[in-house]
Amino acid sequence: MPLHDGAGALRDDTARLGDLILTTDTMVEGVHYLATDPPESVGWKLAAVNLSDLAAKGARPEGCLLNHALSGEPGWDAAFLRGLGEALACYAMPLLGGDTVAMPKGAPRSYSLTAIGRAGARVPVRSSARAGDRLWVTGTIGDAGAGLAVARGGTGPERLLARYRRPEPRLAEGLDLAPLVHAMMDVSDGVLIDALRMAEASALAVEIALDRLPLAPDYPGSPVEAATAGDDYELLFAAPDGFVPPVAATCIGRFDNGTGLRLTSAGSPVMLPDSLGFSHAT
Amino acid sequence: MPLHDGAGALRDDTARLGDLILTTDTMVEGVHYLATDPPESVGWKLAAVNLSDLAAKGARPEGCLLNHALSGEPGWDAAFLRGLGEALACYAMPLLGGDTVAMPKGAPRSYSLTAIGRAGARVPVRSSARAGDRLWVTGTIGDAGAGLAVARGGTGPERLLARYRRPEPRLAEGLDLAPLVHAMMDVSDGVLIDALRMAEASALAVEIALDRLPLAPDYPGSPVEAATAGDDYELLFAAPDGFVPPVAATCIGRFDNGTGLRLTSAGSPVMLPDSLGFSHAT
Repeated sequence: MPLHDGAGALRDDTARLGDLILTTDTMVEGVHYLATDPPESVGWKLAAVNLSDLAAKGARPEGCLLNHALSGEPGWDAAFLRGLGEALACYAMPLLGGDTVAMPKGAPRSYSLTAIGRAGARVPVRSSARAGDRLWVTGTIGDAGAGLAVARGGTGPERLLARYRRPEPRLAEGLDLAPLVHAMMDVSDGVLIDALRMAEASALAVEIALDRLPLAPDYPGSPVEAATAGDDYELLFAAPDGFVPPVAATCIGRFDNGTGLRLTSAGSPVMLPDSLGFSHAT
Repeated sequence: MPLHDGAGALRDDTARLGDLILTTDTMVEGVHYLATDPPESVGWKLAAVNLSDLAAKGARPEGCLLNHALSGEPGWDAAFLRGLGEALACYAMPLLGGDTVAMPKGAPRSYSLTAIGRAGARVPVRSSARAGDRLWVTGTIGDAGAGLAVARGGTGPERLLARYRRPEPRLAEGLDLAPLVHAMMDVSDGVLIDALRMAEASALAVEIALDRLPLAPDYPGSPVEAATAGDDYELLFAAPDGFVPPVAATCIGRFDNGTGLRLTSAGSPVMLPDSLGFSHAT
């Protein structure tokens, strides 16, 4: 397959074309969201997951293209578009175009969005962490995973459900961090798996202190559960020792020479869990 | 839904962002291609239909993003990517990035590609035909429709099947025509429906001479069948009276003040067929 220079050998979530940042994400019913999720929130989330990739590059949203597969239920489709439109308006990413298609009866709903952002002076990639860098994450983690459990019929605060269904891409934080950090990516599949991906892309080892993970006061699970749950859409970044972030963020680990992921708690080694996070596909 | 200025109010197949032309197309098994079509040709066609939109704007391919839904059959998926890669190499549109997702078992295959081209000095839109302009089309029409009948089990020459399965986007023709014509679009759904779309976008009427339609010597159907079949991926354009096209093209009609589509044959009016072409979705 011929690759564009701006593809960065497909090692990042985004591509570059001049000063544009390009990303695309597909959401499939039953894979990336629940058939019972409200259509407005599916539309919102499709925009948010793409915007989160732009945020991780410190890009300003410019526009997007939608691949819209009609579901055969006009009310559902209208509500989906309403939720998508809300997010596009909220984050100033107007629609440039798209394609609307009919689907065979009974096919799962599936949507793609391609988002285009305008890069700042510096675009941090995931592969440029350095030995000795600290690993940081914005916000709190695990909430969306706990919200998914609520959406599946569990009990829990509405706030967690909202974090699963209506993630808020960290665009402002990304703009502030991009000029300053060594490496950055968004947390979409879980802190552990995404931190390991950053370490591998940077040819380094990473160590994470489970007892330093930023959990919300009402987060119902364990630190390991939080660190292996997907859909956080927080920003994960590498910055030199002594770095003082200009946004709310927590230092949770460090990069060193070597390979792989190590966990600690209160300074003692902790076994890795069987699964480091969510993997939609190979 | 907030629209970007470059969306052209979604009246065209493509959007503009600076000197870039953007387009996206989705292909769904059982809707846009047959489940029995070889995977290589599905990959090829996904690239070709997007390239055809760039051709109609006189744009040079720059790069593309792929939304790849894994089918659960690795051999099929590899062959699909091989065919896609062949087309990308053939037309110099390298891959910038994409997203690969798993699909639920039994879901129809579905693929999206977003293509980005570099515009020339002039980008013809479909809405700028003028009263008195002649309507032209490149190549021959109807072959892909006849090829679809062959693919469905009919008999006919291999050439027709190839025109259905491996369309060749008219990029070189588009580059030559874009600076010269008033309006241009590709023929994806049928000459009649697409010519009417150009007329409606330009607030004009269009008349087509069925006996002037360019049919291949081995085309097995009638002119009306050719003009209402989809998947031609030829270029349809409006140019002033007396225009001499720099590429192989046939004058098939003219635009005038008014509305709607009229057909003639040997100078006499002909009834419109029940269906003007193929419509994938509303």
